[in-house]
Amino acid sequence: MDSKRAESFSDGVFAVAITVLVFNLLPIGSHVRLTGSVLAVHWPSYVGYVVSFLTIGIMWTNHHGMLAQITRVDRPLLLLNLLLLMGIVALPFPTALVAGHLTVYPGGGLATVVYGLNMIFIAVSFALTWFYVAVHARALGGSPQLRARAMSSVWFTVGNVGYVAGTLIAAFVSPVAGLIIFGLLAVYYMFEHLPAPDTDREEDA
Amino acid sequence: MDSKRAESFSDGVFAVAITVLVFNLLPIGSHVRLTGSVLAVHWPSYVGYVVSFLTIGIMWTNHHGMLAQITRVDRPLLLLNLLLLMGIVALPFPTALVAGHLTVYPGGGLATVVYGLNMIFIAVSFALTWFYVAVHARALGGSPQLRARAMSSVWFTVGNVGYVAGTLIAAFVSPVAGLIIFGLLAVYYMFEHLPAPDTDREEDA
Amino acid sequence: MDSKRAESFSDGVFAVAITVLVFNLLPIGSHVRLTGSVLAVHWPSYVGYVVSFLTIGIMWTNHHGMLAQITRVDRPLLLLNLLLLMGIVALPFPTALVAGHLTVYPGGGLATVVYGLNMIFIAVSFALTWFYVAVHARALGGSPQLRARAMSSVWFTVGNVGYVAGTLIAAFVSPVAGLIIFGLLAVYYMFEHLPAPDTDREEDA
Amino acid sequence: MDSKRAESFSDGVFAVAITVLVFNLLPIGSHVRLTGSVLAVHWPSYVGYVVSFLTIGIMWTNHHGMLAQITRVDRPLLLLNLLLLMGIVALPFPTALVAGHLTVYPGGGLATVVYGLNMIFIAVSFALTWFYVAVHARALGGSPQLRARAMSSVWFTVGNVGYVAGTLIAAFVSPVAGLIIFGLLAVYYMFEHLPAPDTDREEDA
Repeated sequence: MDSKRAESFSDGVFAVAITVLVFNLLPIGSHVRLTGSVLAVHWPSYVGYVVSFLTIGIMWTNHHGMLAQITRVDRPLLLLNLLLLMGIVALPFPTALVAGHLTVYPGGGLATVVYGLNMIFIAVSFALTWFYVAVHARALGGSPQLRARAMSSVWFTVGNVGYVAGTLIAAFVSPVAGLIIFGLLAVYYMFEHLPAPDTDREEDA
Repeated sequence: MDSKRAESFSDGVFAVAITVLVFNLLPIGSHVRLTGSVLAVHWPSYVGYVVSFLTIGIMWTNHHGMLAQITRVDRPLLLLNLLLLMGIVALPFPTALVAGHLTVYPGGGLATVVYGLNMIFIAVSFALTWFYVAVHARALGGSPQLRARAMSSVWFTVGNVGYVAGTLIAAFVSPVAGLIIFGLLAVYYMFEHLPAPDTDREEDA
Repeated sequence: MDSKRAESFSDGVFAVAITVLVFNLLPIGSHVRLTGSVLAVHWPSYVGYVVSFLTIGIMWTNHHGMLAQITRVDRPLLLLNLLLLMGIVALPFPTALVAGHLTVYPGGGLATVVYGLNMIFIAVSFALTWFYVAVHARALGGSPQLRARAMSSVWFTVGNVGYVAGTLIAAFVSPVAGLIIFGLLAVYYMFEHLPAPDTDREEDA
Repeated sequence: MDSKRAESFSDGVFAVAITVLVFNLLPIGSHVRLTGSVLAVHWPSYVGYVVSFLTIGIMWTNHHGMLAQITRVDRPLLLLNLLLLMGIVALPFPTALVAGHLTVYPGGGLATVVYGLNMIFIAVSFALTWFYVAVHARALGGSPQLRARAMSSVWFTVGNVGYVAGTLIAAFVSPVAGLIIFGLLAVYYMFEHLPAPDTDREEDA
């Protein structure tokens, strides 16, 4: 299958998943009496919205960077991609857990750990997909150098240990600290990214 | 109408429908007190999410494989396609039934049967659409061999008896067993699929 | 602006709006005890889902047929198109009213009348948009014959009196009868449609 | 990255966000008894729906007009764009606040102020993104005149003081007046817009 269509479908899923995040905010509007303190007490909902929004947005960027390197997708790649999307689409769920329970004990730790596990699932799926793309670069219509470049980007996926660290910190130190780490990782991945395909090189010229 | 646009609209519907599945998880976050057992008791929600996600994802793959074989769509095909999408979009509903009632009697059997009936509706719509495409291959701009190849793929659609079997097992033996069968069918259809259009042959070269 | 982009955005809105319809079904899953009669009593939800799904699906087909006739869009056309989309996106709301109140008095009549008013809003927006396209065919890059053909399709938009009739019948005779009329109108518009642009003529050759 | 893909992803996000607005209407259908006065009392929901719908729709138009001027996007631009989308996607939240509290004191003022702050966030993100595009026009593949034309459009973004004025009026004078101003601004931006890229000039010929 042409990789364009898998990309377009994935783009759609990312776009919907990122928008679903606002649903965790809507119930705030159903309070009988709306006051400043009602809005303020829901700050974990806003933080969760921002962190998850940036995460999905940056995942989209990198996902796009990955598929842009090839021209064809095969069935195993479609399945790996589907696993990755399954993780992305699920993210509003732990975001809802965090939004509702971040500041209470023991729910806050549990919510943030589930959030972290979801992040790890996404990161592992992404690494597996990227690894598959690199190994089958030629069969998928990628450039010959893709495999070598992919290997050199091993630190990209190894950087995912950050999600493990954030999850452990959420579990044993502080849920809020864990959430902050997840937010920082999103910003980190905004700048640390996959090697650009050859066609993008002109940008650097 | 150019089949590209019908494909693009269908892709959008698939992308939204697959993302809607997470809405069955969000209410779990509204428990007053979040504990491990609260999360654990909702395991049918997670299983339903995974099974429905894989099903819609793989349906998308095969739907795409079908439309890729032709270049035009006519009104009857659009109507058949709309029926198919109507089944896909409805799937979060029986998924919600399964998520909420799988482990109780008699709700579990009823929920899984409704789930199975939705699957059968999708499978039959898919078979009808595929049959229509095959019979009108020339008028729709498909390759001359499409009709012959479509006939040889009759086992693809006949394989849908799996959904009937799963529904009967859900009704008379065990809802959980029925759900497992639906999950296995999704994996099955990941690998057993429609004949590739000629333009994809280069992948095998 | 290139009409392709307005089309692509509109396609996305149609795809999401059609999928939102399933949200009227999801609460059925939250009944404490799921039985056949619980499912049966919600039949207006299923009928509403089918009628609205077909209506949005067919509106998409015709909307696409309209934009396919031109190559550019200007600001007034974008605003008219936005009004049309505003009506499409709103449809899940009266569908929810119908789903919850069709069989009770006086809610059923009121719900179906609101449904009909939404339909009329959509139909009028569509007629205005189509009229604007026809009058400005040349400026929008349409074929010279478009204007003449559009005039000959006046019955297409006049056929919208069906929505007025359905609304009146819902108000004064029977909400169920009104809903059936809306369903039949969707089927009618599946086959009675806008004149095809010249590029599609090859289908008839 | 090719700007086409960023555009396509953004289009998807806009399309979903604009459709999410209907979710603020759906709960109206769950009233036990549906009467005309039940529908009437929810008029802030309808006004909020229309104002937010037009705002997102026109934002999409202008967003599209902005990205159409360049052919490449870089990482900082993607991040700015993501901030803009984060504001767009959040809009259903203050719309829900307005829908539920516009007519009560003090909730109405608070809700409309939050609505205004969201508008200001969107307007500032848009101005920053547009400024970035203008300054880096050459590197992003835009026309050489883009920078000069962008500077001449400074009044476009300065016009955003309207959102500040609306927010202040909502806070100190009347929430309803503030909301009306936001609606008028949407109509204003329908006609006052970014300079068209050169390729669109043929429309004026």
